[in-house]
This record gives sequence, structure tokens and C-alpha cells, in this order.
Amino acid sequence: MSRPPATQYSIHLQVTLENIPGVLGRLATEIGAAGGNIFAVDAFVAKGATLDRDMVVNCSSVEHQHEVVAAVENTPGVTLRAWWDRTFRKHEGGKIEVLSLYPVGDQDDLSMMYTPGVARVCNAIAADETLADEYTIRKNTVAIVSDGTAVLGLGDIGPKGAMPVMEGKALLFKEFGQVDAFPICLDVSTPEEIIETVVRLAPTFGGINLEDIAAPGAFQVEEALKERLDIPVFHDDQHGTAVVTLAALWNALRITGKKMEDLSIVISGVGAAGVAIGKILMGAGATNIVGVDSRGAVYDGRDGLNEWKQWFAENTNTDRKQGALSDVMAGVDVFIGVSAPDVLTQDDIKAMNDDPIVFAMANPDPEIRPELAEGLVRVMGTGRSDYPNQINNVLAFPGIFRGALDARAKSITENMKLAAAKAIAESISDEDLNEQFIMPPVFDKSVSQRVAEAVCEAAIADGVTRA
Amino acid sequence: MSRPPATQYSIHLQVTLENIPGVLGRLATEIGAAGGNIFAVDAFVAKGATLDRDMVVNCSSVEHQHEVVAAVENTPGVTLRAWWDRTFRKHEGGKIEVLSLYPVGDQDDLSMMYTPGVARVCNAIAADETLADEYTIRKNTVAIVSDGTAVLGLGDIGPKGAMPVMEGKALLFKEFGQVDAFPICLDVSTPEEIIETVVRLAPTFGGINLEDIAAPGAFQVEEALKERLDIPVFHDDQHGTAVVTLAALWNALRITGKKMEDLSIVISGVGAAGVAIGKILMGAGATNIVGVDSRGAVYDGRDGLNEWKQWFAENTNTDRKQGALSDVMAGVDVFIGVSAPDVLTQDDIKAMNDDPIVFAMANPDPEIRPELAEGLVRVMGTGRSDYPNQINNVLAFPGIFRGALDARAKSITENMKLAAAKAIAESISDEDLNEQFIMPPVFDKSVSQRVAEAVCEAAIADGVTRA
Repeated sequence: MSRPPATQYSIHLQVTLENIPGVLGRLATEIGAAGGNIFAVDAFVAKGATLDRDMVVNCSSVEHQHEVVAAVENTPGVTLRAWWDRTFRKHEGGKIEVLSLYPVGDQDDLSMMYTPGVARVCNAIAADETLADEYTIRKNTVAIVSDGTAVLGLGDIGPKGAMPVMEGKALLFKEFGQVDAFPICLDVSTPEEIIETVVRLAPTFGGINLEDIAAPGAFQVEEALKERLDIPVFHDDQHGTAVVTLAALWNALRITGKKMEDLSIVISGVGAAGVAIGKILMGAGATNIVGVDSRGAVYDGRDGLNEWKQWFAENTNTDRKQGALSDVMAGVDVFIGVSAPDVLTQDDIKAMNDDPIVFAMANPDPEIRPELAEGLVRVMGTGRSDYPNQINNVLAFPGIFRGALDARAKSITENMKLAAAKAIAESISDEDLNEQFIMPPVFDKSVSQRVAEAVCEAAIADGVTRA
Repeated sequence: MSRPPATQYSIHLQVTLENIPGVLGRLATEIGAAGGNIFAVDAFVAKGATLDRDMVVNCSSVEHQHEVVAAVENTPGVTLRAWWDRTFRKHEGGKIEVLSLYPVGDQDDLSMMYTPGVARVCNAIAADETLADEYTIRKNTVAIVSDGTAVLGLGDIGPKGAMPVMEGKALLFKEFGQVDAFPICLDVSTPEEIIETVVRLAPTFGGINLEDIAAPGAFQVEEALKERLDIPVFHDDQHGTAVVTLAALWNALRITGKKMEDLSIVISGVGAAGVAIGKILMGAGATNIVGVDSRGAVYDGRDGLNEWKQWFAENTNTDRKQGALSDVMAGVDVFIGVSAPDVLTQDDIKAMNDDPIVFAMANPDPEIRPELAEGLVRVMGTGRSDYPNQINNVLAFPGIFRGALDARAKSITENMKLAAAKAIAESISDEDLNEQFIMPPVFDKSVSQRVAEAVCEAAIADGVTRA
């Protein structure tokens, strides 16, 4: 498979060049001939007869990295001193650290932050447990809990394999929501064990973000924890995805002028994300939804539905449509994909109503490639950053938890999620809104702040605050 | 109880003074008359007719804080704008934060540290789990696990009440060992539940520091986890205390010239710390140890010994001495207290051999006040920072875990603990060593580094490394 060179496969090169004209040009030519994409030429240290340089070259695979390195090594006048894979280097020793909020420079600091002074705070909390929300990291700290059973698109790779993703998520929590988050990857065998473990951990945290837990266990875990804990529990794969999807759909409707209650919607993929999307769309007024999984349309009475698909079947597809995806696409206004690459065809889109809206969010390869959908759709969104309209959870979860923590919320209600979606959608003005721009850029941090404020207000309005 | 003013009860005052001579003096006089100890007078902002100042005043209790505040409020020419309890203020929102080791500033950062690049690292770990020690926070991160059943001297105050201590411990790990540590306070009912939970959490961490878990459950938890996990498990209340006690004793012996194998030793307190101290001293050559608990001397055949006290009884007190503490103090060389305030009398010390060594480490109030022991002992140590020879775990645990992580140790062996004690003891030169200086100052960070190196070497020598 020939992929274009990309940052995820980029390498850092430390080279020494003969200090005569043309050597850098020759090196660049050789790298280019090997298919490498020079991303940056950084430092420059002249050492008389030689020059030391650092370069970053994007490659397309691990094999390709070695081809580029060989090309560098074979360039006359160039010595390769060292090179490394930038992605792996950035993961060395993990991606997060635990820092003190205050210096501990002397005995006085120690006597307040540790013994003997800390005993005063401990006693205060023992006498009134709600003070833990004020005087411990509970005030600002969320656990990112996974059992590693459904990591990205990689499947069940276990808790250690899941760690890099959860650490990455912790970065995003901090960067976009100023929320402290800590990965908790669990070596467990059943949803019951996840539930039990998280209940035991709950004194440490002010919120629980469930992540990459396979359905249907994920549903069971979330329901049980919401029931048993008085801190917000949020399965991002479900609700984060649902929130950003609703935001995207609302903005697409601003363009097409259609109304939520009139839409015919097909959701491809009836796992954790698909069920949650269906639910939030119904909460926002949608009435005509058909879900399709790998066995076709989901309808009441079909075989082999788990508890949550059964719920979905009973609450959607009132016409009890049956058959494959292509059998249910006629006359549909909105296609939402959280399933698998290339399941949607050009003919499927041609069968849709006027002004088709297609959100093909399978990662990294969408349900239909945007190039194939071009000209056939009115509004298209994907999960990817290299196409317009990236529908990305990072617009939602940091702000949702920020708002929930600020409100000291006991839970995250439907209204809080709707408020988050509204804040995301409304962050794009009527002037800026167009077919290529229905979602704010991921790095626009003002969005998280709007989301946080809206979620905090909704928590207070719903009366779900602990304090 | 009249205690001297101390930092742990210090208050921060923001006052506005009339800008005429003598007002500050009057204020200082009033604070002094109320028994407050002015620790610092910080900022100074002149505003024409007035001056704004910040002050820190040490008080002796919460009631006393209010008395001092009232004195300030009643001083003519002084307006109290605001005041707060400095200890509680330093705990607001907790004392630690979770930070990214690298900036996440743009899409390129994101594509390496999160999707899609992170999937490469996940897959590598899924294919070879040992890579988690290199590419996740496991490489440098320790869980500080407590159930809150024996917090400081406060007893069973529950997991939320324990949080401020565990957060404080995390600060110390980072400050002294550059180890990332995260508090895990568990809502559990039995040692079995702690064991089960920590086993499930183990994929996330490179080490487990058990803390403030009541004996005998703590012994059971540590033994089971050492058995079941391939990362270091260390109960600091036991082994950290044992290590620093051995270091202190070694240095006291350098002064008295006595030999470990000749010593008659009494240990007051046969809980987690006492048993571990006995064990490490035997490992270092001690042969004559008698333990005393609240029911008197521990001997083989006594009633009501739990499994660990029974082990202790069988391996110490070969003369089967019986009776209260004062009944076993005659002819003793070394008294080690990890028990309760004021259990040791002047007469007990008088009954000891020449050159008595007394380590009275009960916190915050020692087994005998140093003032009472003065002139009777040759070498005295306590757990306190306001007397000479503070025997403090912080000299041990950060360096021990630093060394264990650096070695990628599977466990912490007896040799690693002995090496740590030796490094601490040897950090004091023959020239510097004297009766008032047998332990290095807590804030001498070079000690942790020496400990780390010694522990790492010992781990390699013992062949307990994972890599």
C-alpha cells in the first residue's frame, strides 16, 4: 500500500555535511528521490570544514524510513551521525508527568504540604468528606479508564498496549480543558471487574472518562458506574462522538435548511458510538432513524440483538426496514458512519434525497473517500484532519469535563451534552459557515471554553451539582 | 495544650496601614501580645495615605489564628483586607497536576502523540509487552496506594481523608527522586480487595508504593503483591522506616564503636514498621532483639500474636523475656521506638548500657522528649525536623524507587534495602559525623541520588531486572 509521507512516520536526522556548496542540495535531491518529504532543516553549526545539521523528513512507512536513511548514508559528502523515529521518540518514558503545584523548597513548605500540617487537612476531610472536592486533586482530576479491548481501530490489544492512547488523551484534557487526567489501564476480564475497580478508585478522582472499552460491555460499565458514583462518568467513544456529530449535523442543517424532525437518517455502525448518536439525535428531535450493522438494518424482531441494540431497534426504524445498507439508502437525508472503510458507495449517495449530508467518520479510513463523494454530496464530514469538516471528539470532551468539574456535577445529563453540542455548533458564525466549514478547527481552544461554560450552566439548571 | 506557634498553623494577612511612622510597630506589638510569631513581612505597596502589606504569622492552633486575627483587626490604623490559613490554601484543588512532557501545539504534534501515530506505538507494545516499560509512563511512574486505614497517626480516616498525604508523598517522590508518582486511594474493605485492585492497576505503573495501610493487612497485601507482580512493591511504612533506621544505627555505631552483632536492641512497637526494622537489623547482623507492643514483650508462646508477630516472636527474643517495656530495658544498647508518645522514661534509659542509643521516632510526639533524655543518652534521634538527627523516610523512598526504576527491577530485594541504608549512612563523612549529626539533612538531594545509584547497582547484582 503506497501511502503519502506523513508526520507519524517522520524521522529526525543528524547529519554532518562537507562545508562546500552543493552538498545540502545533493542531500535534498537524494532524499526526494527516495520519496522522503523534507519537513524541516533545523540547526546549523559550522565547524570549519564541516557543517552539522538537523533535518526532519516525513516518510510513509517503517520500511520507507530505512530507504530514506540508506539514501542519506549513500550521499557523497554527507555523514549520518544519528537518526530516530520521531513518533517513538516522543513516547519514550511516556508522555505525561506528575508535577507539584507548589515548590517544596524547605522545611516550612514541607510542614504545610506534608507533615505535620497535612494532618489538619486530612482531619477536616475525614470530618466532612465533601471537602475532598476542595482540598484534593478530586477538584480537577479525571481518570481515563480503559481495559484495552477496543483501542482505536486496533481492537483488543490489552491494557499495556492501550496506555499510549490514554496518555495522549490526558495531554488533550490538559491542553484543551485545563483538566488533569490520569490514565488507568486495567488488567481485567469482565465488565463487572471494571465496574468494581472503578468504584474502588472513585475516592481519588473527580470524574471518570471511559475509553476504548468494547461494546456491549462498555454500555454495562457506564450504566452501572453512573448508578453507583456521585461523580461524572462519561464514555467518550459514545457521548463525545455523539456530541460532535450532533454539532456537525446542526450546522449542516443551517446550510441545507432542513429540519431535524423531518430528516431520514441512516447510521452505519450500531456499536457504542452509533447507539449514542441515535440517542442524542432523538433527544434533539430526530424521529426517523435506521441503524445498520454488519448484518444489515437493525429492526425490532431481528435475531441476535444485544440489550442495547434491542433498545435501539425498539426506538428506531418504525417501518421495520430490512436488508443491507444499500437497501435502506433510498430517500435518506443524512448518512452517519461510525463503522468501517468503504462501506458506502457512490450509488448509495445518488439514491439519497437532495442536499445529501454524509458524515463518514470511520478512522482512519472513512466509509467513503471524500474524493469519491465530491460533487454528489452537499455537506461531507470525516474524522480526519486532512479533509474539511473534521468531526473530532477533542472539540467536546475537554470542555464537557471542565464544565462538569466546575459545576461539581454528580453526572453528565442529556441537557449537558446538548448544551455542549450547541456551543460547538454556535462557535461558527452565519458568515463563516459554509459547506466546507461546519466544524471549528480542533486547535481553536475558545471552543472548549464555550463548551465548558454551557455545560456548567446546564448542570446547574438540571440541579445535578454536588455542592 | 499550649504549643509553640508553627508554620502548619500559619496565616497570611493582607493589611492596609496608615502611612505614618509607628503603625507597623504597633501592629507587630499587638500580634506579639496575642502570641503570634511574625514569620515574614512581604510586599509593600505605598498608596499615598496608606501602605498595603502582606504578612505571615505563625500561630499555634485554629483558635489562636482567630485570636491573632482579632488582635490585628483591633489595632488602630490597621485595616485587615483579607486573611487565610496557609496550610489549607496550599491544598486547594490538590497539590499535584498532570502535565504533558511535550507541547501539543499543532496537527503535527497531534499526529505523533495521538492519532494516527500513537497507533504505531500501541501496536509495538501489543506485539512486545516489555516495550511498555520504554514507551509509556510505566518507565517512571509509581502508584502510591492506600486504603486510608492507618494515615499518619490519625488512624482509619478513609480513602478521601488519606488523599492529602498521598499527594504530599507524590510531591516528595518528584522533588527528591524525579519519580512521577500518583495517589491511588481505594474504597475497599479487606486486604484481599486491595490486592485484587492493585493487580488490575499494574499495567499502568512501574512500581507500587504501599502507604498507611493498617497492619496486619499491610503485610498480607505486600506479600501477595510481591508474589503476583513483576514490578517493585514497597511498603514504605515498613521498609522506608527500616532503611533510615538502619542508616541511623550504623552511624551511631561509628560513634560508639560498638558492633551490630553485639548489640542488645529493644524495639517498641511491633506493627508494620517495628517488624520491618527487626528484619533489616537481623539482615545487617543484629542477633539480640526484643520487641515490645502495648501488651509487653513479644515472645514465642505469647497469646494473640498475628502471623507476623508470631514470625517476629520466633526470630527474636531468644531468652523469651517477658513483661513491660521497663522490665526489658536493663543492659540494652539501643532503643528504637515506633510506637507512642512518652512510653520511655528517664529510668529506662538509666538502666541501659553505656553509650545508650535512643531513636524515639513516634510522630509527632516521640517516645521520650529529647529534653528529658539529654545527658542520659549518647546518641538520640527522632522523626522530627526540630531536633537533631531526624530519621525521615524521605531520605530513602525517592532514591529507592529511582534506583529500582532505573534498573527496571522486578522487586526490591533485601540487598537493595541494605545498599540504600549504606548510601545514606556513608553520605556523612567521618569528619562531619558526631552525636548531633548522624543523619544527612532531609533537603540534601544528593543523598537520594547516592541511594538511587546504590539501589540500581544492587538490583543488577541481585539479577532482579526485567530487561
